[in-house]
Amino acid sequence: MSTPKQIVLASRPKGTPTAANFRVEDAPMPQLPSGGLLLRVLYLSLDPYMRGRMDDAKSYAKPVEIGEVMQGESVCEVLASDRPGFAKGDIVTAFTGWRTHAAWAGGPLRQLDPKQGPITAALGVLGMPGFTAYSGLMIIGKPKAGETVVVAAASGPVGSLVGQLAKMAGARAVGIAGGPGKCRYVVDELHFDAAIDHRAPDFAAKLAASCPKGIDVYFENVGGVIWQAVLPLLNTYARVPVCGLIAQYNAAGPSDGANLLPRTMRTVLTRSLTIRGFINTEFGPEHYPAFLKIVSAGIGDGRIHYREDITDGLENAPAAFMGLLQGKNFGKALIRVAQ
Amino acid sequence: MSTPKQIVLASRPKGTPTAANFRVEDAPMPQLPSGGLLLRVLYLSLDPYMRGRMDDAKSYAKPVEIGEVMQGESVCEVLASDRPGFAKGDIVTAFTGWRTHAAWAGGPLRQLDPKQGPITAALGVLGMPGFTAYSGLMIIGKPKAGETVVVAAASGPVGSLVGQLAKMAGARAVGIAGGPGKCRYVVDELHFDAAIDHRAPDFAAKLAASCPKGIDVYFENVGGVIWQAVLPLLNTYARVPVCGLIAQYNAAGPSDGANLLPRTMRTVLTRSLTIRGFINTEFGPEHYPAFLKIVSAGIGDGRIHYREDITDGLENAPAAFMGLLQGKNFGKALIRVAQ
Repeated sequence: MSTPKQIVLASRPKGTPTAANFRVEDAPMPQLPSGGLLLRVLYLSLDPYMRGRMDDAKSYAKPVEIGEVMQGESVCEVLASDRPGFAKGDIVTAFTGWRTHAAWAGGPLRQLDPKQGPITAALGVLGMPGFTAYSGLMIIGKPKAGETVVVAAASGPVGSLVGQLAKMAGARAVGIAGGPGKCRYVVDELHFDAAIDHRAPDFAAKLAASCPKGIDVYFENVGGVIWQAVLPLLNTYARVPVCGLIAQYNAAGPSDGANLLPRTMRTVLTRSLTIRGFINTEFGPEHYPAFLKIVSAGIGDGRIHYREDITDGLENAPAAFMGLLQGKNFGKALIRVAQ
Repeated sequence: MSTPKQIVLASRPKGTPTAANFRVEDAPMPQLPSGGLLLRVLYLSLDPYMRGRMDDAKSYAKPVEIGEVMQGESVCEVLASDRPGFAKGDIVTAFTGWRTHAAWAGGPLRQLDPKQGPITAALGVLGMPGFTAYSGLMIIGKPKAGETVVVAAASGPVGSLVGQLAKMAGARAVGIAGGPGKCRYVVDELHFDAAIDHRAPDFAAKLAASCPKGIDVYFENVGGVIWQAVLPLLNTYARVPVCGLIAQYNAAGPSDGANLLPRTMRTVLTRSLTIRGFINTEFGPEHYPAFLKIVSAGIGDGRIHYREDITDGLENAPAAFMGLLQGKNFGKALIRVAQ
C-alpha cells in the first residue's frame, strides 16, 4: 500500500487561487476509531463551494484553517469497520476532505449500493449537487408548465439537473454554458429548449431571443455579468433561487465601476421578484427521499442524463479545482483517488 | 364655488423633481357620469410611489404622461351620485389624481363611515400605506416572538405601522428616522424598542448596537446607505420585504463608485436571505379584511398610533411632495384640498 497523502491549505488566496495555496503532504495511516470506520478514498468531489472555505470571511460554514486538510466529500471503500451495519468492502460517501485515507468517527455517512448505478453519481446528480438543483428549483423556484426557467453552468452537475427537472415540470428550459461544445451537449443530450454561449459577444441579445416570454425562474449559480443579462428579462413574480456565485468567488473586494445594486433592487421592487439564497442542507430532512426517488427514476428511464469530468490522482486536485473555477470542466468534476 | 384646479406633469424630472416639473391648471367642472359620482376632493394623499410614475421607465404601473394629471388617491365628498348606494354628502376614497373635483366612473372606490374615526386615516394607517406595512410584514416578513424587526422611515405611515405590528407579534422593533424629533416620537409615542437617527455620523454602529441579536426582518422602504448598514446585521434566514426605495428614486442612472451588488448577493447566499419585492395590491383580496380588523382594533385600544402631516391647498402639493422625497414630512403626508 502506498503512503497516505493529503492536501492542505498552504495559504489563503488573494483572488484566484494558485498552486501555491495548496500543499500535498504525506500523512500517517489513520487508525480505526472506536465505533467508526477506516476508509480508502476512491473518488473525491470538487465543488465551487470549496472556494469559499479557503477565505476566512463569515459564511454558513467555517473556513479551512491554514495547514488544515481541504474539505470535501468523497466516495470511499471501507477498509475496516467497528460500526454495526458496515463491513469491509462496503462503499460509502463521507466528508473525508482531500486525502487518500480517512478515519470516520461521526458526521454524514451514506451507504451506497453499487448495483443501483455508478457510485460516482452519489457525488453528483444523486448527491449534493443534484439535491441543490432539486431543492432550489422545486421548493423555491416552483416552475409551472409553460413558464421559462434559465440556468447557467448548464452542462455542470447542478445546472444540467435544473434544466432537466424544469422540462419534467412542463417548463421551457434555457441553459447558459461556456463554448459551443457545452451548448451542443445541453441541447442535444440534455434536451434543453435552447443553450446560449455566455462567451458570445451578443450574449444578452441571444438570451433575450431565447426567452420570448421572459424568465419566470432564474436559478442563480454564477452571478456577475450573466445576472446583468438576466435581470431585464425577469417577469413579474419571477423567482431567483441563489445557490452559488462562482463568477465572483475570486473577487478580492468590491469591484469598481457602476454600482449595479440600485438597478437590481429597483427591479426587485417593480417586478415583485423573490431572491432567495439557500444551502441544500436546509431542505434535506423533509425533501431528500423524494429527490432520490424522482431523480433515480429519471436516470433509470432516460429522462435525466449527466456527465462526469474525472481527473486521475489526488495530487492533481488543485489544478482540477482551479480549472473548475474557470469553467474548464465539462460535467461533474471528480478526482479518481484510487481504483 | 371656486374654479376647479388640477396639477399636471409638465415635464419629466432629471433626478430630483423641481417645481418646473408640475403645472397648476384651471380645469372644467366635471359632469356627473352615468352610473358614477361627482366628487369634491377633501384630502389628497402624497406617497413616494408617485415619484416612479413621473418617469417613463418600465414598472408595475403606467407612467403619467406629460400634460396628464398627477395620479393619486384622495378622500372626497360626493357632490352628486348616479350610483346606487351612494348619496350626496357621502365620504369616499377614490383615485382622483391631484385635483379639486373629479368624476368617478369606475375603479377602486371605498365608502367611509366618519363615525368610525378620522376620514384621513383611510389614506394612511387604514389605507394603502397601512396595508403595505401589514402585508409586507405579516405575509412576507412573518416576524416571530423574540425576533428583531428593523424599518426605516419609522415615523412615516408605513414604517410606524410596521414597528407597531412587530411589537404586537412579540418582536423587537427598531426604527430608523431622520432627526432627533422623529426618533423621540418613534420610541416615546410609537413604543419601538429603539430608534436610530440615520443622519448620525456613527449611524451604522448605533444600528448594530440596537440589534444585539442581529436582524431577522428588514422592511425595506428606502434603499441606499441604510441597506449598507443593515446588510452585515442580517441573520441567517432573514426576510427582506421590499416595498419602496425612496432614497434612490431620484437617481438618474447607475451611480459611480464601488459596485455593491456582489456584496449583497454574497450575503443573500451565505445567510440564506429572502429578498421579496411586493406591491400591496397583490395581497388585497385575501388579506384586506383581516388588516382592517386588526389595525382598527389597534387604533381603538391605543396600541396603534399614527401621525399626519397636513399641508393646506392643492397648489402646495408639488412643494409638499418634493419635501416628502427628502424626508421633510413628519407623519403621513396629506394635502387638505377643501374643508
